[in-house]
Amino acid sequence: MKAAVLHRYDEKLAGQEFVKYETVSDPRIENPTDVIVRIGGAGVCRTDLHIIEGIWRDKSNVALPYIMGHENAGWVEAVGSATNGIKVGDPVVCHPLITSGHCLACRRGNDMHAEGSSFPGINANGGYAEYLKTSQRSLIKLPKSLAPKDVAAFTDAGLTAYRAAKKASRHLLPGQFVVVIGVGGLGHIGIQVLKALCAATVIAIDRSEGSLQLAKECGAEHLIKADGNEVEAVKELTGGQGAEAVIDFVGEGDSIKKGLDATRNDGFYYIVGYGGRVEVPTLDMIASEKTIVGNLVGTYAELVELMALADRGRVHLKTKEYRLSDANQALHDLHNGKVHGRAVLIP
Amino acid sequence: MKAAVLHRYDEKLAGQEFVKYETVSDPRIENPTDVIVRIGGAGVCRTDLHIIEGIWRDKSNVALPYIMGHENAGWVEAVGSATNGIKVGDPVVCHPLITSGHCLACRRGNDMHAEGSSFPGINANGGYAEYLKTSQRSLIKLPKSLAPKDVAAFTDAGLTAYRAAKKASRHLLPGQFVVVIGVGGLGHIGIQVLKALCAATVIAIDRSEGSLQLAKECGAEHLIKADGNEVEAVKELTGGQGAEAVIDFVGEGDSIKKGLDATRNDGFYYIVGYGGRVEVPTLDMIASEKTIVGNLVGTYAELVELMALADRGRVHLKTKEYRLSDANQALHDLHNGKVHGRAVLIP
Amino acid sequence: MKAAVLHRYDEKLAGQEFVKYETVSDPRIENPTDVIVRIGGAGVCRTDLHIIEGIWRDKSNVALPYIMGHENAGWVEAVGSATNGIKVGDPVVCHPLITSGHCLACRRGNDMHAEGSSFPGINANGGYAEYLKTSQRSLIKLPKSLAPKDVAAFTDAGLTAYRAAKKASRHLLPGQFVVVIGVGGLGHIGIQVLKALCAATVIAIDRSEGSLQLAKECGAEHLIKADGNEVEAVKELTGGQGAEAVIDFVGEGDSIKKGLDATRNDGFYYIVGYGGRVEVPTLDMIASEKTIVGNLVGTYAELVELMALADRGRVHLKTKEYRLSDANQALHDLHNGKVHGRAVLIP
Amino acid sequence: MKAAVLHRYDEKLAGQEFVKYETVSDPRIENPTDVIVRIGGAGVCRTDLHIIEGIWRDKSNVALPYIMGHENAGWVEAVGSATNGIKVGDPVVCHPLITSGHCLACRRGNDMHAEGSSFPGINANGGYAEYLKTSQRSLIKLPKSLAPKDVAAFTDAGLTAYRAAKKASRHLLPGQFVVVIGVGGLGHIGIQVLKALCAATVIAIDRSEGSLQLAKECGAEHLIKADGNEVEAVKELTGGQGAEAVIDFVGEGDSIKKGLDATRNDGFYYIVGYGGRVEVPTLDMIASEKTIVGNLVGTYAELVELMALADRGRVHLKTKEYRLSDANQALHDLHNGKVHGRAVLIP
Repeated sequence: MKAAVLHRYDEKLAGQEFVKYETVSDPRIENPTDVIVRIGGAGVCRTDLHIIEGIWRDKSNVALPYIMGHENAGWVEAVGSATNGIKVGDPVVCHPLITSGHCLACRRGNDMHAEGSSFPGINANGGYAEYLKTSQRSLIKLPKSLAPKDVAAFTDAGLTAYRAAKKASRHLLPGQFVVVIGVGGLGHIGIQVLKALCAATVIAIDRSEGSLQLAKECGAEHLIKADGNEVEAVKELTGGQGAEAVIDFVGEGDSIKKGLDATRNDGFYYIVGYGGRVEVPTLDMIASEKTIVGNLVGTYAELVELMALADRGRVHLKTKEYRLSDANQALHDLHNGKVHGRAVLIP
Repeated sequence: MKAAVLHRYDEKLAGQEFVKYETVSDPRIENPTDVIVRIGGAGVCRTDLHIIEGIWRDKSNVALPYIMGHENAGWVEAVGSATNGIKVGDPVVCHPLITSGHCLACRRGNDMHAEGSSFPGINANGGYAEYLKTSQRSLIKLPKSLAPKDVAAFTDAGLTAYRAAKKASRHLLPGQFVVVIGVGGLGHIGIQVLKALCAATVIAIDRSEGSLQLAKECGAEHLIKADGNEVEAVKELTGGQGAEAVIDFVGEGDSIKKGLDATRNDGFYYIVGYGGRVEVPTLDMIASEKTIVGNLVGTYAELVELMALADRGRVHLKTKEYRLSDANQALHDLHNGKVHGRAVLIP
Repeated sequence: MKAAVLHRYDEKLAGQEFVKYETVSDPRIENPTDVIVRIGGAGVCRTDLHIIEGIWRDKSNVALPYIMGHENAGWVEAVGSATNGIKVGDPVVCHPLITSGHCLACRRGNDMHAEGSSFPGINANGGYAEYLKTSQRSLIKLPKSLAPKDVAAFTDAGLTAYRAAKKASRHLLPGQFVVVIGVGGLGHIGIQVLKALCAATVIAIDRSEGSLQLAKECGAEHLIKADGNEVEAVKELTGGQGAEAVIDFVGEGDSIKKGLDATRNDGFYYIVGYGGRVEVPTLDMIASEKTIVGNLVGTYAELVELMALADRGRVHLKTKEYRLSDANQALHDLHNGKVHGRAVLIP
Repeated sequence: MKAAVLHRYDEKLAGQEFVKYETVSDPRIENPTDVIVRIGGAGVCRTDLHIIEGIWRDKSNVALPYIMGHENAGWVEAVGSATNGIKVGDPVVCHPLITSGHCLACRRGNDMHAEGSSFPGINANGGYAEYLKTSQRSLIKLPKSLAPKDVAAFTDAGLTAYRAAKKASRHLLPGQFVVVIGVGGLGHIGIQVLKALCAATVIAIDRSEGSLQLAKECGAEHLIKADGNEVEAVKELTGGQGAEAVIDFVGEGDSIKKGLDATRNDGFYYIVGYGGRVEVPTLDMIASEKTIVGNLVGTYAELVELMALADRGRVHLKTKEYRLSDANQALHDLHNGKVHGRAVLIP
């Protein structure tokens, strides 16, 4: 099959060709629960740039060359002997993790923290390719209303935003405030999810007018241009107190300190974006009784919930399509801030 | 002052004059935290009919004659010596309970279950009158967007619907279903609150086409005419399983059995309306692992949350205005099903 | 193999021979995830008597003859081709349900409500036998500290008590009260679990002095002899308010009304035992804002938790051993109130 | 009255006389809800040393001279005109905050985050004195089993440890682990609370053998000497995964990094002690999905809960008594690590 393969890290993202479009051997059914999916679309994620930079090298322990692409959807191409309930041709979206379902984390509905899981596109071959090997447990059948290429990016960008926004929605009450920092591929989903799951007032912060416009379309009630006075602007909107929840889709530079400062005492600061560092005195943590929450993708059940929102038109993902052979173009466009919403590779 | 006073019970609601419009002595500040409110509007509730029938006699222990009216809003007329932060003329809505805030229930944010509380209109003189005595702790100042007569009925009808719907929203996930039985004064608020607080699909059941139309306007996705096959209709919409939550605003006749039957295993049946009996074998309760939840009004903080929804236009209360001197007309209209939304008495 | 087989219902439990000890064909591996367990002990449950009475006939839809026994532990005898992580000879305790792990309930950690599950001993052949067919997903390996025959009855009696007590422990605070009605096979576990998971004060109610003595040994702080004045006694201990939680392990006769009456306003009444009917006016439910909770067994993860308590000596199960060939004796002893703790059949 | 008064900050804690024992004017009833308490005991807290160092200067905005002492218990000496339910001579323990009970935080049971509260001993005169002015809402009457001097230190040291341990107990399940870092005045209470409220296995870490011995007496199952390999030791006890909860009563030096490292993925790191800084890459936060929780004292209701535990003998506070005139000795002993448990000043 054809695939866009990562052969070497590029710490400064200085090169022209991050991945090489070439012919590789097809994935094959090896275990009885394996499933081969013909890719209909594979999302291009900022994490892919971070992988190229080598940031994930120590955490993922993957050997190069390998195929990136952890946001996948398509059609079932082949099934192992112990699968059931799915058949060749079914349109499916792939939960990013492969799990056995046997460990305690899975048993408790927390499959994101399964023991012995694998994560195609991160620590195994992913979906920048014509075919992907995954497992039955990772598949969700799509309703007719949703096409694979349109929902592929829900599996990570969408799911991560969904999980963080859902966590916040569990404690946000009418009359309270939630700040969304960064209205890109994840942030614009986060706003829509917040509007669907709670009645808190949404304040969006971004550097770009275009992104703030997108935030408005997604339902944000207040827009703040990131110009250095974001914290003061949030304080002014919230009676001087800050917001009960802040979801930081940037997670680097000054967004971290500002995010924490914009969080009300007794409030929650959710980290989704990464690259920077949390640096805060323990005295401030105890005097404010704030909580800092890390967020990583979401569970299979949460992806089902997100698909239900998408199916009902409550959440819409903005995408920009590229041919798989143009993977480098997509990665460069993302790196250069030229992708509004989410880039998707189509074989 | 003028008031509509209840002098005797009427178990069959057979009389013409349930209450007597007459002159009574004005309420006065007695305790340092007392506040007198000039009534702008007082909601007329089905519970008032039940009071007239004598159903609440044993629970409320109130001595006749007394003044009904437990849904009140207006303007501050006089304040006790230990009040602060409110002044004469402030527009306010009255939480129905008067509490000291000292008991453990209040301390835990559960003031509906305060020790030693009083409930004007139920066990003390209420708001079918020109003036009402309440306490500072019971008052919420109104934003300019909301007029007392338009929000009076939020304090019980609205608040009760809000609390039950909020409880359900805490566990309802996208892709799940909630059934609302009875789309009257409470039910139509319940639907709007559900739409604001969660993304579950709402199924409304009512006998009246008009009420179903109202349900649709409030956001219900599915409408079921109560014709005897409601349970089957719910099962068909929910893949044969029933709904994860059922909120029963009727609570009498066959709505109880049907409500429980329409509840999915592991689901929740919320009782708001009353008059009938829950009758279910313990075997069915354990085999289905269902939960039955009683609901009574809501907390002060929840009324603040509901006002926030109203202020943002997320919840709208349909009202029909009557002069206070026409209280009997309002009560009869309610009894005869001629009030769509909520009747409000205006002095 | 030898088994104690149920051939016909006996509605009055009037016969001598409820089950027949006879030779039947051995269970065999059929699916790749099947496991055959050599039974080390099988608990005898009041539900088995109810099955014999025919009470479960409509709910379980099992065809006679079949083998009861839903509380099983033993050693792995044979494994299917798709199992892993277990080997022949491993000591195991069997979660009572067989599930695929694929449905949303399982994904959310709620495998008790799995779609398409089977329940050996209830709707398939169980463990009143030398061998049992179950699946890999149902097995928990035992630590060396625990012998199969000593923990078999944890899988239903213990697990059901654990789940109900755990639910209550989630909301019980120091200074609050929990009533346990019925201190038999389940109730004495329930008390121990409550003592391990929360600091509420435990009030035990039973008709038998012996059971009350057992309650005391398990940690109950207050003992009430069931003599007709149980509710008054609970009220006296709780400042006139009733208990924040009541766990009813009887669920028939007057225990239901008394259980609800002994529950404080805003409190929870947990049904575990069955046979009777909940009968309560909706007015009482809303005026008291009580919650009635059905309880059925528990999840796989909860059985792991219970085993952790057992392994640390925090929960001890009183058992009485019978030979499998004496199954009728065990069933009669249970019926006649001669079993303190739990009867266990040993092949 | 006599009091130990702070006249100037001492950033290096180098002086001999931190406070001056002298005669000051008695506090007087000014507001109708004021209460004067005759001090039976006032706890000496590490925060008092931090106040002397000037660390709290910017946060508390208190003007010197003033009287420290935020852990107070004694007897009611005088009451304001609007108080009720308490009388002169009642033994009481004082919740550290003075609140009006009117703000939304109080209404929601979260009085630690009340608007407009004051905190005697931090930003107003405290209990290093013969008399203290507080308010009715802050008082809890003591049962006869508890003497003021023995429970004074529960109001901050105890309450802070209780709240953090209670938060952890809400998610800790049997078979899981909780690490307690630092077994001093707070930590030894934390361990006892964990043992009372959940069944997780407790691992205690401290530099001192004496403190580890105290941890053992309090119920810790595993003891780790802080010698540089604490994280490895925790990993070894927890199957290489780390603990589901870590409560850090030190919060300075390397305890922060070690505490986070000893926390399992998806686990919670609770900060109670302070002085150092949290420094962690956002990548680590999202890859591990850990949560960092700040903790500050506790609510009035939580102090009631803690008193219930103390009354039942479930939590015992180790104290060392000093005369009020020896306040400097007590402060120096604390500074020099010579106080095991909690120092209490007695007028």
